[in-house]
Amino acid sequence: MTTHPSTSQKLSAELLGTFWLVLGGCGTAVLAGDQVGAPGIAAAFGLTVLTGAYAFGPVSGGHFNPAVTVGLATARRFAWRDAPGYVVAQVVGATLAGALLLAIASGKDGFSASASGFASNGFGDRSPGGYGFWAVVATEVVLTAFFVLVILGASSKRAAAGFSGVAIGLALTLVHLISIPVSNTSVNPARSLGVAWFAGGDALAQVWVFVAAPVIGAAIAGVAHALVLGDEA
Amino acid sequence: MTTHPSTSQKLSAELLGTFWLVLGGCGTAVLAGDQVGAPGIAAAFGLTVLTGAYAFGPVSGGHFNPAVTVGLATARRFAWRDAPGYVVAQVVGATLAGALLLAIASGKDGFSASASGFASNGFGDRSPGGYGFWAVVATEVVLTAFFVLVILGASSKRAAAGFSGVAIGLALTLVHLISIPVSNTSVNPARSLGVAWFAGGDALAQVWVFVAAPVIGAAIAGVAHALVLGDEA
Amino acid sequence: MTTHPSTSQKLSAELLGTFWLVLGGCGTAVLAGDQVGAPGIAAAFGLTVLTGAYAFGPVSGGHFNPAVTVGLATARRFAWRDAPGYVVAQVVGATLAGALLLAIASGKDGFSASASGFASNGFGDRSPGGYGFWAVVATEVVLTAFFVLVILGASSKRAAAGFSGVAIGLALTLVHLISIPVSNTSVNPARSLGVAWFAGGDALAQVWVFVAAPVIGAAIAGVAHALVLGDEA
Amino acid sequence: MTTHPSTSQKLSAELLGTFWLVLGGCGTAVLAGDQVGAPGIAAAFGLTVLTGAYAFGPVSGGHFNPAVTVGLATARRFAWRDAPGYVVAQVVGATLAGALLLAIASGKDGFSASASGFASNGFGDRSPGGYGFWAVVATEVVLTAFFVLVILGASSKRAAAGFSGVAIGLALTLVHLISIPVSNTSVNPARSLGVAWFAGGDALAQVWVFVAAPVIGAAIAGVAHALVLGDEA
Repeated sequence: MTTHPSTSQKLSAELLGTFWLVLGGCGTAVLAGDQVGAPGIAAAFGLTVLTGAYAFGPVSGGHFNPAVTVGLATARRFAWRDAPGYVVAQVVGATLAGALLLAIASGKDGFSASASGFASNGFGDRSPGGYGFWAVVATEVVLTAFFVLVILGASSKRAAAGFSGVAIGLALTLVHLISIPVSNTSVNPARSLGVAWFAGGDALAQVWVFVAAPVIGAAIAGVAHALVLGDEA
Repeated sequence: MTTHPSTSQKLSAELLGTFWLVLGGCGTAVLAGDQVGAPGIAAAFGLTVLTGAYAFGPVSGGHFNPAVTVGLATARRFAWRDAPGYVVAQVVGATLAGALLLAIASGKDGFSASASGFASNGFGDRSPGGYGFWAVVATEVVLTAFFVLVILGASSKRAAAGFSGVAIGLALTLVHLISIPVSNTSVNPARSLGVAWFAGGDALAQVWVFVAAPVIGAAIAGVAHALVLGDEA
Repeated sequence: MTTHPSTSQKLSAELLGTFWLVLGGCGTAVLAGDQVGAPGIAAAFGLTVLTGAYAFGPVSGGHFNPAVTVGLATARRFAWRDAPGYVVAQVVGATLAGALLLAIASGKDGFSASASGFASNGFGDRSPGGYGFWAVVATEVVLTAFFVLVILGASSKRAAAGFSGVAIGLALTLVHLISIPVSNTSVNPARSLGVAWFAGGDALAQVWVFVAAPVIGAAIAGVAHALVLGDEA
Repeated sequence: MTTHPSTSQKLSAELLGTFWLVLGGCGTAVLAGDQVGAPGIAAAFGLTVLTGAYAFGPVSGGHFNPAVTVGLATARRFAWRDAPGYVVAQVVGATLAGALLLAIASGKDGFSASASGFASNGFGDRSPGGYGFWAVVATEVVLTAFFVLVILGASSKRAAAGFSGVAIGLALTLVHLISIPVSNTSVNPARSLGVAWFAGGDALAQVWVFVAAPVIGAAIAGVAHALVLGDEA
């Protein structure tokens, strides 16, 4: 027999899961990016969520992302009153992972977080492929919206039970395959903040875009899901 | 308790799923192809269908492809009278995704849809590896036939419930691994049309092959499945 | 309600599944090998079996490989009297796929099956990495044995239902990741024969090794499984 | 009907599973590393555990790793009195795989286990990317801790049944994507010992780190799981 997780257990699960997302995804980019390339980084981000969904998801629901929390709340799958706690836990977990990653990366001679970019997101000069502001905003809004639509659909009552972690994790891999050259891929404000503190400079100056655009995309998805697909779950 | 999805919900799911297929698959090819290569593009196409199958499949059945709709109808798994609506929704979704992709790609200086090919399909001079007309036709017919055989088999009553999305999505990845050098891989008329409008010129002149060949392959599979494998599901 | 598949349905499923294995695996090697590399070829072989397991496996059990048929019969999971028919269907399917692949590959100027090797297996001078006879034999025996152990274990009554197709398909990917440089990876006599006919010359002269070694490995696994792991399924 | 596996069956399953882990993971690194790169090696390690979890896991629980055994025992999911037998079986299996791999690799002219490193782990001069002692220790402790948290979470009563093998195997792939450049990735004392015997020299002199750090990380996870996430499974 299992009991319902307590609030502190839920917040711990969100903190650990978001820590794992940033350590695994941004860690692969920073420590191994030149060996595994964009496909390896895309795989890593997806696998943090796939594994975290089965490991921590049963406790907290497995958001690991403030935009996901907003999207689920907008779709009435999650209580708005619990959102602030979740978002704080996510940002704290992401930031702690960024700090650990900085410590590990500094164990190699010549490392510099600001010079390397430290897996931060950006537009214009800071876009890996030189994409402008509006292309980056459109990409982040639309990809976050579809990421949240996959989450809402795959975890609905209609969908095959158990598979949501596979679908959601691999959706994040897909999102990265598409958009690493555009924005270095955020779709997750906590992931963006968790490394921007340490990259500093322009990375920190641009990070508001990667807070705002994913949240807007997620809210659109939350409304669209119930409206267009008629889910009652 | 869940109710049966309405027709407009089904058509919305097909439109969104095909939008996702083209944005994710062709988007990876156009925006990130030089970073992720053919394996990354193959992964992306498959993951659009894998994730879409769990997200939108419970609403519409998850075709996202006019050839699949024809194959399922031929095998008597889908009503012919519902096919026109599905096909229109798929082509509209693919075309909207092509338009959005054009807008995003244009956010990088020097982009040209016609010069880059814009992930369009082709034979002869327009085949990535220089394969001739009949090699391309044979490849598209046979691979679509097997793609539809996997769909029919994996979603039959005999098969393990829930796994069809994994099998079908990864079958599309496999199809791309085989045939990107041959035809740039269609097996899906909506995917081909969705980008051919914007690539224009020879891409548009050749696109009829990537409408006809997949549909023929799918119809063969629909007949063969019932005839050879004796499925009654 | 579903009925038991007939013998002709089972043999059709084995023929189609082995056709798919050779078309997908060897096809990726021949048509796209220079673009997707060993990891892409390894993925392709595994995905043919993963997808075939869900598509054709419910009809025939999803062997697609004479060594697997021998291994299952040795472990008393499959009737010896049905083995000859299965093996013939597998070799016919593999050979038809080899023939189609030859036709498609010939649609590109300058293609030569004998000069390219046509995805055939080999040792010594014909080993991709120059591995000698005994290294190749040991590799094929041991990897086939573990491949069959995974099949027997993952499809036993003790294992989680439904997941065997995922485990078995990805085991074949793993086998290829390890051993493409050693033997170009067989572990499947039908796959080896299906292309050796067309590669001819030394490929055909060496193919007996890739018939014998996998069968020996599979028989060892069949005995070991019941003996060491005590499975009664 | 199935009966409970005997102790000798469990130890055989652990020996075979750890043999498979080292043969598949280290084998890919040694035999095919220059063809498949770090992503291919990461995939291989994960697939040994994913496939072993479904093949041998139903017999022994599928540890294949002394650190996992310690982590599960710390979390009271496994009896401490059974741990020594498991650890011996794991180290024996890993060592036999290392020996077979040495024999196969020697079938190619010019191979030298000590010169190639033989997939051994290391820090400082022996770290692939030149990471220092403390960076390597921190990486191994933290990644083993999260690997064990994924195992404990995904196999808890709360989690979706059957999916733990997928989540755990892919977690090991993720761990390798992050840390191959740092330590060549251990998180498993048996894997490290199984090749260090044959690499010899400095590899053997440093191997104690890759015994101690994973065990410490696993024990931390075992305590943290029950304490923070409140699992009663």
